[in-house]
Amino acid sequence: MRVGVIGGGQLARMMIAPAVELGVELRVLAEGEGMSASLAATRVGDYRDAETVLSFARDVDVITFDHEHVPQPVLRALVDAGVAVHPGPDALQYAQDKLVMRRRLAELGAPQPDWIAAESPDDIRAFLDDHGGRAVVKTPRGGYDGKGVRVVSAPDQADDWFESVDGPLLVEQLVDFHRELAQQVARRPSGEVVAYPVAETVQRDGVCAEVIAPAPRASERLLEVAARLGVTIAEGLGVTGMLAVELFETADERILVNELAMRPHNSGHWTQDGAVTSQFEQHLRAVLDLPLGAVDPLADWSVMVNILGGPTDAGLTDRFSAAMAAHPVAKIHTYGKEPRPGRKVGHVNTVGDDLDDAVYEARAAAGFFA
Amino acid sequence: MRVGVIGGGQLARMMIAPAVELGVELRVLAEGEGMSASLAATRVGDYRDAETVLSFARDVDVITFDHEHVPQPVLRALVDAGVAVHPGPDALQYAQDKLVMRRRLAELGAPQPDWIAAESPDDIRAFLDDHGGRAVVKTPRGGYDGKGVRVVSAPDQADDWFESVDGPLLVEQLVDFHRELAQQVARRPSGEVVAYPVAETVQRDGVCAEVIAPAPRASERLLEVAARLGVTIAEGLGVTGMLAVELFETADERILVNELAMRPHNSGHWTQDGAVTSQFEQHLRAVLDLPLGAVDPLADWSVMVNILGGPTDAGLTDRFSAAMAAHPVAKIHTYGKEPRPGRKVGHVNTVGDDLDDAVYEARAAAGFFA
Repeated sequence: MRVGVIGGGQLARMMIAPAVELGVELRVLAEGEGMSASLAATRVGDYRDAETVLSFARDVDVITFDHEHVPQPVLRALVDAGVAVHPGPDALQYAQDKLVMRRRLAELGAPQPDWIAAESPDDIRAFLDDHGGRAVVKTPRGGYDGKGVRVVSAPDQADDWFESVDGPLLVEQLVDFHRELAQQVARRPSGEVVAYPVAETVQRDGVCAEVIAPAPRASERLLEVAARLGVTIAEGLGVTGMLAVELFETADERILVNELAMRPHNSGHWTQDGAVTSQFEQHLRAVLDLPLGAVDPLADWSVMVNILGGPTDAGLTDRFSAAMAAHPVAKIHTYGKEPRPGRKVGHVNTVGDDLDDAVYEARAAAGFFA
Repeated sequence: MRVGVIGGGQLARMMIAPAVELGVELRVLAEGEGMSASLAATRVGDYRDAETVLSFARDVDVITFDHEHVPQPVLRALVDAGVAVHPGPDALQYAQDKLVMRRRLAELGAPQPDWIAAESPDDIRAFLDDHGGRAVVKTPRGGYDGKGVRVVSAPDQADDWFESVDGPLLVEQLVDFHRELAQQVARRPSGEVVAYPVAETVQRDGVCAEVIAPAPRASERLLEVAARLGVTIAEGLGVTGMLAVELFETADERILVNELAMRPHNSGHWTQDGAVTSQFEQHLRAVLDLPLGAVDPLADWSVMVNILGGPTDAGLTDRFSAAMAAHPVAKIHTYGKEPRPGRKVGHVNTVGDDLDDAVYEARAAAGFFA
């Protein structure tokens, strides 16, 4: 069983562990030398170049991804060449273009914030008038971790994007949310689908900072509604592999779809140490069209805290040692990336029966790397 | 942090997953191409050759092992060259020679079966006379998985070994044991030591078949005595890294030391999915002299069932698929080894609150590969 992963970042890296255990041969097309997933990198090359990608794909059973940036023509060329691609181009278009996603979710009846495709500042003005004078403007393509997203209160505050972006902008209602949630779903090409318990995610400066699973104070009904919504989207969009549905939970207890990711996602890292089957193993099983693993949690609570920035290699071993000494229950995951302020370089998972303890241990252990 | 592992078998392979997550660079000196740990193999060479091993060890922070077969002169050469070696030669001698081990355990007051160093068939005769006419004869060096071990009932039944083996044979009392147990302990060079809950192991044809952790019906007292014995041996023998103490539990409820292994061991594979810190992560932490991880179980019960022999690659994916479909809770671990009758090619772990369920799921999933 051979899986080719396009992209050598931490998501590809974290597929290595389950691949080794399952006996899956993982091959990674990395963007450069020394990437996170370099241990499994069998080639370095440009994922936008069809010939590079086709040649990389020649000896694998399936192609999957560390990110959603492979251009549609390259994806189509793979499919035309008879390569199994999961998720496929039809599904990935919804992750690559937020306007395409919003239209499709509307067709599926999925709850989402009010939105429009704005062709001009006048469209934004009309939307602002209807939505209390504030809105979120997004570039439909290319945004991540808070980039390409802007809160506006005047029609001209996205003028630069109207100039630089080809086509309309996505304008969304600024949701008065109580908290953010994330629903992880896995789906096989042959149709089997499973949903993890919905998690709560805490963002800081537009970047995921902490995740608690299952979401605290989640009713059975919320768990059920979120899981069903995730499954509906995975099936409606034809997603194969892991799907992360980022959700707003509103003050009046509705859930609205914020963003989608068609791959293992930061909001699902807790599954590495907190679920019978991690999202990385599940992704491999799903894209290989193998039966999916159990999604049961291993403890009452799982907590994930990201390590952002942090020290350079010089001080790293000492900090490791101090974090481990103080927090023997903390599972420290590192990405082998050069630290830069705000950059995700690792995360800490904890599990336990006491939520406060689990949160404390994860935060305190991650704090050693701050 | 760089760890060099001598030996490219499944134990080295199973260090890859925690090494990637911890950010430890794992380098493996493999015996040949295509070994279990080939993903991390940076060199192929003969571990009996001091120059090969010294050159492999040049750029790593510590040398450790997939097996205990590296000759003492090679180990001493490493130490003389200033290489950190864990476990070191002084500790490894006890794992390499069962007579040396028996003598040292006697000095430590560790409970063990009656034994003698037999120089001749006459010595065996005297021992048989004192022990009901049956005994176990072992070649002090080179045995594993039932090889080099023989039950005898007459003095001449080890004559071939007297001819082929240099020095005395180890003769041990044939213990009337109720069951076999295994105690995993980890110890750092700087002294920190932790003990996992003692597990029950079931052997078939001299090979480990199943493990249940903690050992069913183990009293608090048994758990405590076994843990303390493991710690005493780790400290008394100067073991660094993982130590597995294989034990007999006698009909009259004593525990006696059967064998020792100074590395991750088959009887500790349950920790991969059943403990906060797996024995493979723990071994890396210990040999790097990093603080040890928590040894708490993740569930009431953990079960490990070995996959022995099994189908060739041709049918493997179908069997994988069938096992996964029927047993979504089973954690299947494979070693990337060519199947041969009786050869360990993988194992299945399960965890759960119901022991019967966990045993059933693990056995049934492993059964697909038989």
